[in-house]
Amino acid sequence: MWEWTSSPPASPAHPLLADPGADASLCGMAATGASGTNAVRYGTMRPNVLNLRVVLPDGRLLHTAGPGRQPRKRAAGYDLTSLFVGSEGTLGFLTQATLRLHPLPEATAVTIASFPGVGAAVACTVQVLQAAVPVARIEFLDEVMADACGRFSGMGLPVAATLLLELHGSRCSLAEQQQQMEEIVQENGGSSLAWAEGLEEREQLWSMRHNAWYAALALRPGCQVRHKDGDDGSSAHGALSATALPSPAQGYSTDVCVPISRLPDVVVETKQDLQASSLTGQQGHSPLRQRGLRGLTILHATPHLTRGLAGPMVGHVGDGNFHCILVFNSQDPEEAQRIHAFTQRLGRRALAAGGTCTGEHGVGLGKRALLQEELGQEGLDTLRSIKAALDPHNLMNPGKVL
Amino acid sequence: MWEWTSSPPASPAHPLLADPGADASLCGMAATGASGTNAVRYGTMRPNVLNLRVVLPDGRLLHTAGPGRQPRKRAAGYDLTSLFVGSEGTLGFLTQATLRLHPLPEATAVTIASFPGVGAAVACTVQVLQAAVPVARIEFLDEVMADACGRFSGMGLPVAATLLLELHGSRCSLAEQQQQMEEIVQENGGSSLAWAEGLEEREQLWSMRHNAWYAALALRPGCQVRHKDGDDGSSAHGALSATALPSPAQGYSTDVCVPISRLPDVVVETKQDLQASSLTGQQGHSPLRQRGLRGLTILHATPHLTRGLAGPMVGHVGDGNFHCILVFNSQDPEEAQRIHAFTQRLGRRALAAGGTCTGEHGVGLGKRALLQEELGQEGLDTLRSIKAALDPHNLMNPGKVL
Ligand SMILES: Cc1cc2nc3c(=O)[nH]c(=O)nc-3n(C[C@H](O)[C@H](O)[C@H](O)COP(=O)(O)OP(=O)(O)OC[C@H]3O[C@@H](n4cnc5c(N)ncnc54)[C@H](O)[C@@H]3O)c2cc1C
Ligand SMILES: Cc1cc2nc3c(=O)[nH]c(=O)nc-3n(C[C@H](O)[C@H](O)[C@H](O)COP(=O)(O)OP(=O)(O)OC[C@H]3O[C@@H](n4cnc5c(N)ncnc54)[C@H](O)[C@@H]3O)c2cc1C
Repeated sequence: MWEWTSSPPASPAHPLLADPGADASLCGMAATGASGTNAVRYGTMRPNVLNLRVVLPDGRLLHTAGPGRQPRKRAAGYDLTSLFVGSEGTLGFLTQATLRLHPLPEATAVTIASFPGVGAAVACTVQVLQAAVPVARIEFLDEVMADACGRFSGMGLPVAATLLLELHGSRCSLAEQQQQMEEIVQENGGSSLAWAEGLEEREQLWSMRHNAWYAALALRPGCQVRHKDGDDGSSAHGALSATALPSPAQGYSTDVCVPISRLPDVVVETKQDLQASSLTGQQGHSPLRQRGLRGLTILHATPHLTRGLAGPMVGHVGDGNFHCILVFNSQDPEEAQRIHAFTQRLGRRALAAGGTCTGEHGVGLGKRALLQEELGQEGLDTLRSIKAALDPHNLMNPGKVL
Repeated sequence: MWEWTSSPPASPAHPLLADPGADASLCGMAATGASGTNAVRYGTMRPNVLNLRVVLPDGRLLHTAGPGRQPRKRAAGYDLTSLFVGSEGTLGFLTQATLRLHPLPEATAVTIASFPGVGAAVACTVQVLQAAVPVARIEFLDEVMADACGRFSGMGLPVAATLLLELHGSRCSLAEQQQQMEEIVQENGGSSLAWAEGLEEREQLWSMRHNAWYAALALRPGCQVRHKDGDDGSSAHGALSATALPSPAQGYSTDVCVPISRLPDVVVETKQDLQASSLTGQQGHSPLRQRGLRGLTILHATPHLTRGLAGPMVGHVGDGNFHCILVFNSQDPEEAQRIHAFTQRLGRRALAAGGTCTGEHGVGLGKRALLQEELGQEGLDTLRSIKAALDPHNLMNPGKVL
């Protein structure tokens, strides 16, 4: 156990924990119930937060598990910690999070596999989980994303549906997991695997993946990308209005999560939808990167992308969770409308498959209607009763979620 | 994923899930946030419940994750599932639980180790966790409990602080875990290990452990034990008044949970407290067991136990959680008073160590005062606001928890 106090400036996230991208603070990660590449093995924020210090709307200080407490499990009253994790700032302001830590593995290996199609890559994921391989990360990139990431990082990935896989264990169990993984990948028509075990090589692969957002933005011309320091154009909360880049091209990332058994169907249908809506960018020349002001890169994208919309897919597929990063011209109302219609269809597709309209980004403003469809009236009424009970004057992030 | 519908008669629990004893129903296990021997590896009920169907106090039906939904993770609104898990029937009546399933391991091995003292057994547990051995079960019995269990099951365990350990994995990783375990047990002065790998042998060991409650009751003379069919005298809810055996001897099981690093101290202090309060039964002859009516065993305990109080200790120590099973004469107010004072001291000792007054049995009636100490006024007020919002007429289990 370790206690992190999150106050500006934000504390860095423990790498084995939720691992969301960008510059998230720990309390922000708790507030959004964040998760990431490691969640398939180590869980999302929810099971990893043991206690939260919260400023309640009336100014009083609440410790969700009691002041100074950090047992691994509790059966003492309602689980206030889980209630505040993912409450998106609507119930109180989090000022301290006590987190569970996980031991670092003895050995780690990372690999990349290319597949004949998105269906094969996701079917492989399902088999890995069903075979109980204790995979530590299993990340999916569709061929548009793989191409964009490969070019952005200068690593030149094959233009194919791709899985980025990481295994943790003792030396002996690692070798065994690697063998199992190779067999399952091969059965699904994947490329043969080369394993990166050294730290530098592994970090290079993951930094390629972590730059997916910027690589996606680079699919559009004239797109300005800020590294760090706030407004990077991501929508962590499903709200179109939350994205405001100075250039007309902007990114909107939306996510859904479905039961693993339904994932291949839902991913394949989404891919078809993207193609039919011409939301998937075509591949072309590498965008020119030119470093301008500190931390600001101006991307001159390939000219033949100017007309289409880009919607590469990327996913924490071990959890049944995936994202579409939609890059569009914010000054074109018709494009914005197509994006909106696509995200509604995506959300409803996930709901129809027994899933959720958001696995990690939250409801914010943009997914309030989908939340109602997901929970039904009784569910929404229950959320509203809780909000009214804890924040009777509607002071905390009014209008968000509900 | 699998959906269990829990309605009378109770459905059996999945063995890899929470594994509480006796005849718990799945919705009862969800209602109490139960956990058990497997929780150290597979989690308590909370992370394993994906959705609950709840009859709300006004008669409406709520699906905590939305009707028919079962994604592995969600960020859509407040976590109603976690709110109802562990709510002890005070917010609504659970009628269906959708649970996460875990793959059965390829290989399993169980062993028993005896230690020179309770401190050594618990220190060994801490080292096992710190060494990141992915132990599946690690159960502690103090020497009184080991003796009682050994005699009750006819297996004759050494009268010593004991760990019962189970490992899951592939054949190769199992061998590696076994070796690690042997080294750590040896370092802590434990006995050398013999591993049970066959199903029958393993089940024999676990049935010995699962009968701990009956074995503890057998420490008292004339104690009547009902197997199944309800009132077995256990207090799952920390309420002295909930125990009502027809004979004057009855059992009261109380539990606490502390951060792992504090567990050795808290267990040793509790052991000293039990001894000082003469709550620990002395060892003696095996009680005579005589099967009477169907499912009813009359235990004639050893005569020299008639004056003392028995308080054997047993624990899911991998979670920092342990129980004292207090067997006493319910018609002796002085004994009942000593039991009450002991459980208060135990609860406060756990709180002082940054733990909780209950890791799995819940608050019920008996631990309401400790809950207030644990959460503080702000915490209790927050629980009360939620209760008032969801059950404004206080219809559901009135008086419990709050
Ligand atoms: C490139 C990129 C990659 C990302 N990858 C992931 C990912 O893999 N997984 C994932 O889950 N998310 C991801 N995100 C989204 C984002 O990182 C997470 O939502 C993160 O948890 C937000 O944390 P923050 O501190 O930036 O919060 P903010 O963005 O500042 O706030 C997010 C919400 O939480 C509320 N909030 C923030 N702090 C507090 C507080 N202290 N108390 C109460 N409420 C608070 C805010 O009001 C707001 O509603 C990504 C974002 C980017 C830009
Ligand atoms: C020998 C023995 C060993 C045990 N070992 C463990 C253990 O290892 N771990 C552990 O956690 N517990 C253990 N217990 C306690 C008990 O098994 C658990 O608390 C179990 O979860 C209770 O389930 P039940 O169905 O028997 O519920 P009950 O005992 O009938 O009820 C328990 C509480 O939950 C409420 N409740 C029950 N069903 C519902 C429902 N459908 N909807 C709403 N509220 C409901 C009741 O009102 C009550 O407040 C043990 C008990 C015994 C006798």
